[in-house]
This record gives sequence, C-alpha cells and structure tokens, in this order.
Amino acid sequence: MANRPMKTDFPTSNVRRYLEPGPIVLVSSSNEGRTNIMTMGWHMVMEFTPSLLGCVISSANHSHSMIRASRECVINLPTTKLTDVAVGVGNTTGADIDKFAHFGLTKQSAERVKAPLIAECHACFECRLHDDALVEKYDFFVFEVVKAHVAASPKHPETLHYTGDGVFVVSGKVISRRSLFRPGLL
Amino acid sequence: MANRPMKTDFPTSNVRRYLEPGPIVLVSSSNEGRTNIMTMGWHMVMEFTPSLLGCVISSANHSHSMIRASRECVINLPTTKLTDVAVGVGNTTGADIDKFAHFGLTKQSAERVKAPLIAECHACFECRLHDDALVEKYDFFVFEVVKAHVAASPKHPETLHYTGDGVFVVSGKVISRRSLFRPGLL
Repeated sequence: MANRPMKTDFPTSNVRRYLEPGPIVLVSSSNEGRTNIMTMGWHMVMEFTPSLLGCVISSANHSHSMIRASRECVINLPTTKLTDVAVGVGNTTGADIDKFAHFGLTKQSAERVKAPLIAECHACFECRLHDDALVEKYDFFVFEVVKAHVAASPKHPETLHYTGDGVFVVSGKVISRRSLFRPGLL
Repeated sequence: MANRPMKTDFPTSNVRRYLEPGPIVLVSSSNEGRTNIMTMGWHMVMEFTPSLLGCVISSANHSHSMIRASRECVINLPTTKLTDVAVGVGNTTGADIDKFAHFGLTKQSAERVKAPLIAECHACFECRLHDDALVEKYDFFVFEVVKAHVAASPKHPETLHYTGDGVFVVSGKVISRRSLFRPGLL
C-alpha cells in the first residue's frame, strides 16, 4: 500500500501536467452521506482557464448517478504503487461494498467540494460539474477543477495508462524538447 | 527518421488500445486540394461501437477550419522515433509551410476519407466528424473512427505523452493484471 504523500496547493490551470499524459485516475464522489470510488480512463484536458476536464462516466457505473446528483467529484491520480487498488476499484461496484473501507483508502476533506480526497494518491483535483450538455447522449461530463493538491515529489510519478485487456503501460523515461518549442506553445 | 511500417486492418472498436493511454498524435487533414498536419494532445476515447473519439482542436490551429470544412481527418500515432517531427509539426503552422514536404513525411491514400495517412506513423485512424455540438463552445469535436490501420509490431510501441513545458514522458514497462479483471470490464 502506498503511503499518504504530503500535498501542497497547485495552480488549477496547470493540471494538464498530470492528466494530459492519459493516466488512469480514481474518481471519488459523495452523495446523501455515502461515498464511492471508480477507476476512469476516458478523460481529457479541455481548457487551461477555467481549468476544464472532459470525462466519460458510463451510466453503468454506480458513481454516475451520485455525480449527476451532487454535481461534483474529486479526480485522484494514483501511481504504480496503487496498481492493485486501481484494478480492484475498477472491478467492484459501490452498490455492493464501501470501497474506501474495502481497499483501505483514507478519506481527506476537500476544500471546495463535499466528495473526499483519497490521501494515498499523488494528486487530487476537486471538480465541479461545468457542463452536462452531452451527458444524456454520451455520458460525457465537463468538469471545472476548482482546487488542486499535488505532492512535491517525485516530479514525474510513475503513472498507469490502460490499453485494454487488463494491460497497462507505465510512464517512464522523460524527454525534454523545451528548446524547440515556441514559448507560447509550451 | 522513422521508416514506413507495414500496416494491416484493425478493428475500429479497439482503437482504445492505442489512444486510451493518452499519447500525442498527429492529425492530418485535407481541404480544397491542400493538406496539413497538427500535433494534438487533448483527445479521449468516448465509445467502442461506434468508435468515437473526442478531441479539442483550437480555432488558433490552421487545421481547425480545414477539418470543420471537410468534416474529416486522420489521427496518426507517432512513436518516439518521430519525437522531433512531432515537436516540429506542433511548433509551425500550415499557413506558412507544407508540413508533409518540410518534415519529409509520406502521404498515403486513405480508404474512407480524403485526408492522407502519414506513412511513417505506427497507426492511422480515418475519422469522420460525428458531432459538432460543442465545437463553438469548446473547440470540441466528436469523431467516428471509420477505418483503422495498425503496424503489427512492436506490440507496445514507445509513445510520447506530453506534460507541458516541452517535456514528454514515454510509455515504458508493461504491467498485466488480466487475471484480476471481471471479463466484461477488460
């Protein structure tokens, strides 16, 4: 089990640093006194300011109705230390079990939303539902990140990227091409 | 420069295998006899069947108007062999240069769209615009993948994942947890 890394405030307009590479994430939610967690791989950055994320949360997920009702969630970034937790969370349902208790995860209070942070994750992004125009048609939610908490190290955490069929690739080697970018496009 | 890997047909409903891990991609387009290429990092899988992808293509990109007009594009997956090409394509504009010629890339005819495939890429996904409901508001396009071409090897190509500030992380180690998945959730 991972420890609970100390986190500090992080600018919401920079969350692409952690989410644009496409890691699987753990989405925590809260509604009517109950909490839940799901594993999610279908998400993308949509805007820097306001900090917008697009996410598909299938209506087959127990979290779907909780997030539609509460209109908020926390998107938590696990590292490879939490591989088996991420797989377990994705293969169980909050209709049957309390996932925080079952997987030994620690709830921490968020600042701007009622959904809990997952203390064991490397980063936690508090989100409010910004646009539900495509929820009916595609289960597509646009969230605004209203508060971000990130651990100071490691600078490039090993994250999990799903390829289907039970197989993940892990982020590894770092390549910088900073000198080849036009400054406005970095 | 990368060679031009031989590709075979691939089921469109499985393109998540390559795109869900969040690699940067090269988007090729064609309109009124001109072609262009852009580098894109903001995309996600939205559905298996039909095979839907959501993408943000800023109106600041020369490709934006070409793709809105032609209603199609090809999403090409570069590996680390094309790192400097991907950076170069992202830091130049099709308003000034012919990117295929400038970067020595090879056009191949697609089967279902007029936009060209990029022969040097590991995989090429022919796309038609499926839904433009959120284009005005967020530059958000929903494409349907209508044809997929994938190189047989390597099975897990080294892909580039952007973290901002000119820095990429590369997909590396492979982890399988197949035995821990419920079959319907693989």
